[in-house]
Amino acid sequence: MDATNDPTLRSWIPVPADSDFPLQNLPYGVFRRDQRTAVATRVGDHVIDLGVLHTAGLLADVPLPEGVFDADGLNGFLALGRPAWSLMRARLSVLLREDTPDLRDDGNLRRQAVIPAGEVTMLLPARIGDYTDFYSSIEHATNMGKMFRDPDNALLPNWRHLPVGYNGRSGSIVVSGTPIRRPCGQTKADDADAPTYGPSRLVDIELEMGFLTGPATELGSRIAGDATRDHVFGMVLVNDWSARDLQKWEYVPLGPFLGKSFGTSISPWVVTLDALEPFRKAGPTQEPTPLPYLRTEQDWGYDIDLEVWLLAEGETEAVCISRTNFAGMYWTIAQQLAHQTVNGTNVRPGDLYASGTVSGPTPDSYGSLLELTWRGTKPIALPSGAERKFLADGDSIVMRGAATREGLRIGFGEVEGTILPAAE
Amino acid sequence: MDATNDPTLRSWIPVPADSDFPLQNLPYGVFRRDQRTAVATRVGDHVIDLGVLHTAGLLADVPLPEGVFDADGLNGFLALGRPAWSLMRARLSVLLREDTPDLRDDGNLRRQAVIPAGEVTMLLPARIGDYTDFYSSIEHATNMGKMFRDPDNALLPNWRHLPVGYNGRSGSIVVSGTPIRRPCGQTKADDADAPTYGPSRLVDIELEMGFLTGPATELGSRIAGDATRDHVFGMVLVNDWSARDLQKWEYVPLGPFLGKSFGTSISPWVVTLDALEPFRKAGPTQEPTPLPYLRTEQDWGYDIDLEVWLLAEGETEAVCISRTNFAGMYWTIAQQLAHQTVNGTNVRPGDLYASGTVSGPTPDSYGSLLELTWRGTKPIALPSGAERKFLADGDSIVMRGAATREGLRIGFGEVEGTILPAAE
Repeated sequence: MDATNDPTLRSWIPVPADSDFPLQNLPYGVFRRDQRTAVATRVGDHVIDLGVLHTAGLLADVPLPEGVFDADGLNGFLALGRPAWSLMRARLSVLLREDTPDLRDDGNLRRQAVIPAGEVTMLLPARIGDYTDFYSSIEHATNMGKMFRDPDNALLPNWRHLPVGYNGRSGSIVVSGTPIRRPCGQTKADDADAPTYGPSRLVDIELEMGFLTGPATELGSRIAGDATRDHVFGMVLVNDWSARDLQKWEYVPLGPFLGKSFGTSISPWVVTLDALEPFRKAGPTQEPTPLPYLRTEQDWGYDIDLEVWLLAEGETEAVCISRTNFAGMYWTIAQQLAHQTVNGTNVRPGDLYASGTVSGPTPDSYGSLLELTWRGTKPIALPSGAERKFLADGDSIVMRGAATREGLRIGFGEVEGTILPAAE
Repeated sequence: MDATNDPTLRSWIPVPADSDFPLQNLPYGVFRRDQRTAVATRVGDHVIDLGVLHTAGLLADVPLPEGVFDADGLNGFLALGRPAWSLMRARLSVLLREDTPDLRDDGNLRRQAVIPAGEVTMLLPARIGDYTDFYSSIEHATNMGKMFRDPDNALLPNWRHLPVGYNGRSGSIVVSGTPIRRPCGQTKADDADAPTYGPSRLVDIELEMGFLTGPATELGSRIAGDATRDHVFGMVLVNDWSARDLQKWEYVPLGPFLGKSFGTSISPWVVTLDALEPFRKAGPTQEPTPLPYLRTEQDWGYDIDLEVWLLAEGETEAVCISRTNFAGMYWTIAQQLAHQTVNGTNVRPGDLYASGTVSGPTPDSYGSLLELTWRGTKPIALPSGAERKFLADGDSIVMRGAATREGLRIGFGEVEGTILPAAE
């Protein structure tokens, strides 16, 4: 195990039991407090302003451009690549360790740099360039095929040969906590002659994870599978809000459009691949064996537990509506990136690549209401006796994720969003 | 007619006969010369460095942020919105008019600001945020349906009700003159059991136009059709390179992906809606009448002649393979923007919205090789006796566009690209 992942190491910043953010996590995010916006890491319930540490000379052994952390996005740091990322992790691991006095005992600097998490507003972690959304859970793709196509041939012919994906809209990606307005648009009932206009009645969630890329590559080049290690910085939770009725009418033949672009929520802290290293494992067996460009030597599954909570409008108690694990995804992040770039597509620092809905094999592990309620035929019972097929105005969704093993917990925090009524 | 569109007005900068860039055009682009990158306009065969004019105080009556033109993209200027765009157009129209001495007679400043077009390299006009590609030619959609689905029901049920579109990849948009490498990827023959990997054999073009948006809007808001005037800055030519064999295997159910993302070329000069104002006309009759949110009071068609030239590898002479007109597009730019935002999607300065392939009603007016050669069954004859069904390595494509009327010619210049052999 890399020394920075040793679970016996502790920080001089208190870390509550079961915190997502021990010294071994060191995620990156962007915060605002008063007039200041900067890149930070987090330990326990405190964010640490990396711009302040940089200016104070405490990161002098890491080759960093001036002002790289006095920024409204991680993009400048993402562009530096793995050597800088690794040096930063090593440096922060020492600086924040309980026996390192440099910052711990400098009261003035500490007051500037170490801020209670409750005092800051988290922003999007990066200016997101392109956003790809894959479709990499075989259980999810099979469920969709069973519900909307042929139950006996639920998977489409290309699905086991390549990680199917589409381009999403990056401009409507928002950070956790941003309310989502119920979209309006066209829908058409199966027995209607023509579509009608109005608010979507089938607003849904999709539980996903996404990764952010690092250094820019050239158009015409590609990233081989295991080289993903040098091109992926870290991961976030993603809620890919979906209006199923809009989507159904619009999506043939060019794919999802307005049914997805009214908002996509992500968690504010990017958990690095370095922090997740102890949780790598083999992905599922793939049959047939993929073409050579999609093969990897290393294990590219990640053992991350995920859960979805619904706090419905009018209820006093949230209910857990799904528990699943990211390691079950059929196509790995390395395969996704190899496929994305096999045609020479370039990547940029801050591109986001989402996994597609993470659904497990059992009905309580599905990642969307469409599957959890099986197209509305099995409503979710709420504590008050009410029920939900899809989301009502005022409903809040919280998704959480964490990797845990032998006393080590690397968490993602959460991604939260509440549905607002449609605009007039 | 707006005074700035009066064709009798001339510039003190020479404008060759049939130039795309008379004083009435005043397009915007970004150039590089030696170490300088800046926003420029163009008259005849000269580019005019707007950063130099701004610094020299010649744009003092336009409220402009400092450095807005000393930039590698138009985004800052796009964000200012129509009032600033109109003031700039009025100011430049006077400053560059033959009887205005301010810049004309200041030899030192003129040498800095007015540069022969041959001395500069044009860059992408903006940092493009989101890129949407519509599918708005009824002739193109019908041709695709005839070739690949049911000739008797060529249009899909949603097509006449909404401007079908999908999200493209903005990171692989390149400026005219950038070579395009033949993509590799998966293809599957109809009679094969499994896909194979290799270079695409069906590399195609799509003749399109695209518009760039102005000020950022809020997530949850929308842009009503005729308000497009305040949200669209101008238009460019677009060549949406397409690998038909990759596309065919990958695109169900989530739409085009790697078959499109290996490169999208745009022309460097953004021609403003103001310059195109004399060329507005009604679009085609729409049947059925669209839903109210897609209706407009004004005419939103634009009478722009388009042509496609092929200079094939080994040939000495380019051939014109298509001539068509943009005004035939079924869905207008105002309808596209109204639809894009009806679900509350926000827009950002520098988003690009492309029209989809512009195909006319006759076989010599189609906008793709797929249609021009009718799926390869009617090859294009080249001067040497060779022929083309799709593009060969070394083939160059040039697309041109211009609106002309009563002595006024507002041109787009060109978008050019050459196919390079696939990577090893």
